[in-house]
Amino acid sequence: MVTTPASATVLAFSEYAMDEAALPSWNEGPAKQSIINFVRGVTTAGGTHFVKPEERIAVFDNDGTLWTEMPAYFQLAFVFDRLKTLAPQHPEWKDKPLYSAVLEGDMKTLAAGGVRALLELAMVTHAGITTDEFSKIVEEWITSARHPKFNRLYTELIFQPMLELLIYLRANGFKTFIVSGGGIEFMRVWAQKVYDIPPEQVIGSSIVTKFEILAGEPVLTRLPELNFIDDNAGKPVAIDMHIGRRPIAAFGNSDGDLQMLQWTTAGKGSRFGLLVRHTDSVREYAYDRSPLGTLDKALTEAVAKGWTVVDMKQDWRRIYPFES
Amino acid sequence: MVTTPASATVLAFSEYAMDEAALPSWNEGPAKQSIINFVRGVTTAGGTHFVKPEERIAVFDNDGTLWTEMPAYFQLAFVFDRLKTLAPQHPEWKDKPLYSAVLEGDMKTLAAGGVRALLELAMVTHAGITTDEFSKIVEEWITSARHPKFNRLYTELIFQPMLELLIYLRANGFKTFIVSGGGIEFMRVWAQKVYDIPPEQVIGSSIVTKFEILAGEPVLTRLPELNFIDDNAGKPVAIDMHIGRRPIAAFGNSDGDLQMLQWTTAGKGSRFGLLVRHTDSVREYAYDRSPLGTLDKALTEAVAKGWTVVDMKQDWRRIYPFES
Repeated sequence: MVTTPASATVLAFSEYAMDEAALPSWNEGPAKQSIINFVRGVTTAGGTHFVKPEERIAVFDNDGTLWTEMPAYFQLAFVFDRLKTLAPQHPEWKDKPLYSAVLEGDMKTLAAGGVRALLELAMVTHAGITTDEFSKIVEEWITSARHPKFNRLYTELIFQPMLELLIYLRANGFKTFIVSGGGIEFMRVWAQKVYDIPPEQVIGSSIVTKFEILAGEPVLTRLPELNFIDDNAGKPVAIDMHIGRRPIAAFGNSDGDLQMLQWTTAGKGSRFGLLVRHTDSVREYAYDRSPLGTLDKALTEAVAKGWTVVDMKQDWRRIYPFES
Repeated sequence: MVTTPASATVLAFSEYAMDEAALPSWNEGPAKQSIINFVRGVTTAGGTHFVKPEERIAVFDNDGTLWTEMPAYFQLAFVFDRLKTLAPQHPEWKDKPLYSAVLEGDMKTLAAGGVRALLELAMVTHAGITTDEFSKIVEEWITSARHPKFNRLYTELIFQPMLELLIYLRANGFKTFIVSGGGIEFMRVWAQKVYDIPPEQVIGSSIVTKFEILAGEPVLTRLPELNFIDDNAGKPVAIDMHIGRRPIAAFGNSDGDLQMLQWTTAGKGSRFGLLVRHTDSVREYAYDRSPLGTLDKALTEAVAKGWTVVDMKQDWRRIYPFES
């Protein structure tokens, strides 16, 4: 975008003009204004807040930030559906409390198992196949499974205001990345189509893969072994590993995003941190200090550090693309 | 580049015209011709070999492919220099055979220790500091240390024909990545300036980093613990992890690149594999089936699979940018 001082006036003008039309699903207010002020600052050549285009890196959490995460992370629904599909080939699962809990919809036993139990289920259902096979399975599921409350495809439950924000940032020279606790290969299947974010800009949790030659064909086989959990303190570590430079803007919605926001906003120069707060029980869900997607410490720190806090109910005119 | 059939004729014409001027440091011959044929094929809209721009991913090994790797990997010289700098603070190193071998230039003891010994030295010299501190140290070294044979900065010992190839591919809509056994954070410091490859497109070996708050400041501290070795079967694994799609072209020079070439060229559609063979003892070095940078199995497979083999002495008119 703005690369030379010579073109500053023209581009600054066109960018300001664009602000009026950008973010139509955002109500006027301090949240929207803070975004526009930040983007104006880093793109105004010659200004004190100017940032070179190649350093305009923005990172987005996915669950609860770019799409809904209730009544449970969408990838969990995939895990459960997959387990049910595989069950006939595994009669021994009936004798395992964790597996039979899923098959019988016994959420209490599942909840008692905690994150470790869910990770075990995720690994069993995601491993033992090649990366190509896994992608096909996700593709099939994501284009057919439906959300229990909205009876829509999960990919329809993305936040329209955040889509507009992604487009607005990219139009201003930003490179947009997903940095999510979700599975990296799960998200990459549909992130390009849904968010216009290419696979190489999707970062997430992962299991180990192994290169081997099967029947003369090189494949990557997915192993039931944890590789990396991209959550909490793992997020800045993953950002450093995949991107190799500090973002100037970070967007999240829960305590799992706290360290990513700390790392991003502690850099020199103009920085931007934003938290989405789920406050709309009618159009989406209302929660924050709840067990899933907890927003507690990060909210306290947001106030102290001046990060933008989006109140969905107040700040978003429209939540989903399918709303008229 | 070529995105719609409507613009095919015009763009195809301009690309062909560009071929004449592209790759001036490559002598006419089958190696140069194979590159041009491949690029013409994947960029000609409507043609049977056309590949969409976003799928034009090219991966390059670094040591021995983009720059010289003799008399030893350049990062080893950095490790040794760093060890000497740190030695006064570590009087106990005098009693450790491995460390005193470096301090006294005893290459026999070092060689006897093998890769493990070198990895230990690398970790000790690369850890215990933050990522920002490490980058500063590399920056200082890479802009001052000189190659023993050429008495030039190491970054001057990059291959001019490969630089032209990087530019030619990018001009044709390719995204170029480094996939190297070298340290990811070592390369990222200078890869943008030297190859015009941004940090997020540099993939390499790594040690573990840890996020922590030190004196109120969030930092990433480098730990003396191996995270990933990006060599041999590790290369396709790293490509999948960082890029998330299979490249259509791969460039290497040793057996450490074999699996990367296998993985790349086994994909559907038009694919390209290339090996640089070091055959010029006067202008660079002549070696292939040598202990360091061994090119043996990959050379045999290149012949069987029709990968392009570059004979440096014959195919490259000019090797380094500083040659007139």
